[in-house]
Amino acid sequence: MNTHYFYTSIKILILGIVLVYNLNLNAQSKTKPNVIIIYTDDQGAVDLGSYGAKDIYSPNIDQLAKEGTRFTQGYVAAPVCAPSRAAMLTGKYPQNAGVSGNTSATPNSKGLPAEQYTMAELFKDNGYATGHIGKWHLGMDEASSPNKQGFDYSFGHLRGCIDNYSHYFYWEGPNVHDLYENGKEVFYDGTYFPDLASEKAINFVENQKDQPFFLYYAINMPHYPYQPTEKWREFYKNTPKPRGDYAAFISTIDERIGFLVDKLETLNLLENTIIIYQSDNGYSTEVRAFNGGGNSGPYRGAKSSLFEGGIRLPTIIQWKNHLPKNTVNHQFLMNLDWMPTLASLCGFTTPLKDIDGMDLSQMIKNPATNSPRTSAFWKYGNQWVVRKGNWKLIGNPKDTSHKGILNFENDALFLTNLKMDLSEMENLAKKYPEKVKELIQEYIDWEHGNEKDIPKKIKTVSHIAVHKLITTQSKLNANYQNIEVLIDGKFGYADFSTGQWIGVEGKNVELIIDLKNSEPISEVGINYLSSAGNWIFPPQEFEVSFSEDGKKFKNLKSVKIKQTKQQNSIDYASLSTSQKSRFVKITIKGIGVCPDWHTGAGNPAWFFIDELIIK
Amino acid sequence: MNTHYFYTSIKILILGIVLVYNLNLNAQSKTKPNVIIIYTDDQGAVDLGSYGAKDIYSPNIDQLAKEGTRFTQGYVAAPVCAPSRAAMLTGKYPQNAGVSGNTSATPNSKGLPAEQYTMAELFKDNGYATGHIGKWHLGMDEASSPNKQGFDYSFGHLRGCIDNYSHYFYWEGPNVHDLYENGKEVFYDGTYFPDLASEKAINFVENQKDQPFFLYYAINMPHYPYQPTEKWREFYKNTPKPRGDYAAFISTIDERIGFLVDKLETLNLLENTIIIYQSDNGYSTEVRAFNGGGNSGPYRGAKSSLFEGGIRLPTIIQWKNHLPKNTVNHQFLMNLDWMPTLASLCGFTTPLKDIDGMDLSQMIKNPATNSPRTSAFWKYGNQWVVRKGNWKLIGNPKDTSHKGILNFENDALFLTNLKMDLSEMENLAKKYPEKVKELIQEYIDWEHGNEKDIPKKIKTVSHIAVHKLITTQSKLNANYQNIEVLIDGKFGYADFSTGQWIGVEGKNVELIIDLKNSEPISEVGINYLSSAGNWIFPPQEFEVSFSEDGKKFKNLKSVKIKQTKQQNSIDYASLSTSQKSRFVKITIKGIGVCPDWHTGAGNPAWFFIDELIIK
Repeated sequence: MNTHYFYTSIKILILGIVLVYNLNLNAQSKTKPNVIIIYTDDQGAVDLGSYGAKDIYSPNIDQLAKEGTRFTQGYVAAPVCAPSRAAMLTGKYPQNAGVSGNTSATPNSKGLPAEQYTMAELFKDNGYATGHIGKWHLGMDEASSPNKQGFDYSFGHLRGCIDNYSHYFYWEGPNVHDLYENGKEVFYDGTYFPDLASEKAINFVENQKDQPFFLYYAINMPHYPYQPTEKWREFYKNTPKPRGDYAAFISTIDERIGFLVDKLETLNLLENTIIIYQSDNGYSTEVRAFNGGGNSGPYRGAKSSLFEGGIRLPTIIQWKNHLPKNTVNHQFLMNLDWMPTLASLCGFTTPLKDIDGMDLSQMIKNPATNSPRTSAFWKYGNQWVVRKGNWKLIGNPKDTSHKGILNFENDALFLTNLKMDLSEMENLAKKYPEKVKELIQEYIDWEHGNEKDIPKKIKTVSHIAVHKLITTQSKLNANYQNIEVLIDGKFGYADFSTGQWIGVEGKNVELIIDLKNSEPISEVGINYLSSAGNWIFPPQEFEVSFSEDGKKFKNLKSVKIKQTKQQNSIDYASLSTSQKSRFVKITIKGIGVCPDWHTGAGNPAWFFIDELIIK
Repeated sequence: MNTHYFYTSIKILILGIVLVYNLNLNAQSKTKPNVIIIYTDDQGAVDLGSYGAKDIYSPNIDQLAKEGTRFTQGYVAAPVCAPSRAAMLTGKYPQNAGVSGNTSATPNSKGLPAEQYTMAELFKDNGYATGHIGKWHLGMDEASSPNKQGFDYSFGHLRGCIDNYSHYFYWEGPNVHDLYENGKEVFYDGTYFPDLASEKAINFVENQKDQPFFLYYAINMPHYPYQPTEKWREFYKNTPKPRGDYAAFISTIDERIGFLVDKLETLNLLENTIIIYQSDNGYSTEVRAFNGGGNSGPYRGAKSSLFEGGIRLPTIIQWKNHLPKNTVNHQFLMNLDWMPTLASLCGFTTPLKDIDGMDLSQMIKNPATNSPRTSAFWKYGNQWVVRKGNWKLIGNPKDTSHKGILNFENDALFLTNLKMDLSEMENLAKKYPEKVKELIQEYIDWEHGNEKDIPKKIKTVSHIAVHKLITTQSKLNANYQNIEVLIDGKFGYADFSTGQWIGVEGKNVELIIDLKNSEPISEVGINYLSSAGNWIFPPQEFEVSFSEDGKKFKNLKSVKIKQTKQQNSIDYASLSTSQKSRFVKITIKGIGVCPDWHTGAGNPAWFFIDELIIK
């Protein structure tokens, strides 16, 4: 060895020692653990090796489970993206977080209200650097943007999904580029988004290594469009499509989680970092997802359904050498519990106010401890769930996994016991009427429950317009043209989608009823639905006039209707008269656009009417 | 200079001489000129610097015009992609080419029939190497694929458009990767498609430099999605969107045409290559194109319209030192004339059979010679055009540029004289009734014209079901639920989209008419539309039964209906009876799927009915 080489070696050695020392110092100087929440998109209930999938290669995620805990009862609070994310980030039911359904992709449309206190704000208030990488889908206006919701750093797309190379949002026209870094549009034309997000995540961790950090890593996979790279396409070439492409996307996630964990290890941060892994909702059965690809295993349901397959999902926590390892925990956990649980694990002392989540840290530390969570509620569209112990009652269930047929009237209340039947294939409602009654009461007593949401037998009504002739000159929405339902003598359920309702978007409708003979009329009324979560509001007013020949209408009367923020209520507005006539014209005026307090403010509002009554 | 350098220099010199010699030899050894047809996608009528655009930078395309001829009356035979391309490639009207509308994106669906003799086959038969690069959109089955239509080499996408980075087709679900090289799916994940296509075009020219070649370079721009690169985004940053992005896409085309022309020059092939540049149809006003971006200048109409703006487009031919340069030619030319014109310019001797195109080489060589083309026909959906001299009659015009309002009944026949009014804003039909009559006759005499296509006043009919009650239990298509039109006493025009027709896709429909009183009935009939180009076929049969109570129906009779390949004919099928009853049930059965001879073979077929007649 000559002198030159000797000194170089010494220098490298010293550099190495200094590096190692610094790394240890970094790790030691941080008194609070880092937190990374990896939130995947539309991943099915059993779509990981560690959850039993034999055809999916996910060694890095499985390793998280091996070094930590995987839950068999890890739930999310909603079966679709935006409300699931809102619940997770606020520790509240989606309704309390102000996001009960998916948010709009329209520029400047509202999302997660600015006044919500998010997990990012919690961590920031406790001295953490906070970062968001990947999908947002919690609003398009500045107030609800990641940087305004507590994230120091944000990189990703604002809408529900993008093409992974062009970063264009394609799901409603026109098609727009959707990629932002701290609120500024950035272009990485042609760069694979999973790689881009992975690089940004690794950079974030590296940049924040000297202080505690919180990273919300919202991976937009295995959400459509399925676009795996050559490597994974090749790996899964013998798996039939769409399963093969879906599985390839899971492995794409897995590989990038491997990169991130490697980086944590290199930085000597792994033992000081809590890593949570969860899917936001069940796998998609939409056409855009080739009607499937994912798997909910023993569970019924998928994305958009409140059967288990829509909400009971892969859920893992790892905190190496601090929390149990290689553990399967069968206790009940909700995504909205992460916020108080993490606050506890990280040693935050300020109590969290007005949240629905529970601190589950004890049952995570010791799986033998019973979870304080024994019950929960879900409400999505007109579906709702009360779970109490192992009993679960679903109102207006939808089975997007198509595992069985639901009878609209008989299964409108669907009772299961998850200990007796994990598959939810049999409706026990008739067998246990008392349990149904009890759980209905629980639901009604819940702050977002409502007697009006409880499905009832279709009520019939008798009046003089039933099965007479109804016509309109108004242009109707293509899905709601069967106006005969307005005078069929049957009331619709509080569910706009059952075919019993006529919906009108953004404008007015004029209906003429021909009673066939001149009849004495004392009352004209309309029943209307309120369901603000579905952008459905009471009409503004309705007008009535009368005619003997169907041409000249006279004696115009009108009634203003009170606005409400209520969900799924059906109300009746009417006016009295004393007429004899054959034709009745009813003009119903909507409120035009969604009101200021609403997520859809400024966008076209709907009204839904069902039975028109003429007495 | 030392010996080593001296010999190296000599070697380089010799190599240079050999190269130059070879290049000249190549050029000289080719007795027939090469042909390149550059066919752009949804480019507006005046969207080039050389066509008057002040806000578009297109120096390379303008240079083609400078070294050649640009036409002010260059037309395409259809206002949308597939039939325009089919006409250009076969020298025939789209109907004669077997492609009257856009072809389907469904795997294996039919397109340009294999038996059509294409320009690629013509060039191949004359010893040319033939290549297709870019968009195909002329069928999804193997028989209609580029390689089966005469192209030795093909690279591009089969459907109407793709994301330029992921090469996914997004315009109907599910979303699929769409990139093929000689029929084999190939992946170039993340590579900008305009660059990829440009590289393939240059490679093709380079590989074929020693023999005559024909290249159909079907550039998929400025078609949505607008995805210009950083360079052109920056260049047009002060041009408002969507115009800025659209203009940037034109410059993206232009730049790549520059690369190709440079390559031809380097290979010393420019003087031996005929280059044609044309857009396939007018600019798009679809939502996906942000409702616009392009410009049809003085012309009315855009994509999908038979006003000038949909079909009169940038058209350039250059053959350096062989055809006139720096010339503006005002004579009439159609894209279907290219095939015989090129055959003539290239000196092919075998006559072309059964084509509609004309050899315009003389008027191209000498713009003072009158073009043999003095008239032409167009037919797209229910729109049709007869042009004779400067007179132009449009049936059922549609103005996708929204430059003015068309009155459905008064403007259903729209007469203009292009010399008197280039803008087509005034309908001269009332002023020149004789001209209308003459041109209608010309249309009817055309092989694809039909008396039934001529708009007439809505005809009324009187029968006992008029304005009685009609109901159905069948699930109707959302766009066709207003079944009252079936018994409104009015006949629909031969246009399925006017709201006068009820369309049913792939299945049957059962209708019950309540005559309110028991009535004597001697005849029950249905009027139905045939419009194979719109996938509308006669029903297979209809059944009639009768009832007094609306519950028990009896005396079932049925009638089979003859199938036809006709376009836009309305026919009547009826049966005689001798009944007295109040309720009539009519069940109409469709043919299910499109017949074997049809582009949509195997896909669901429609039937359209308008007035049901009960006498």
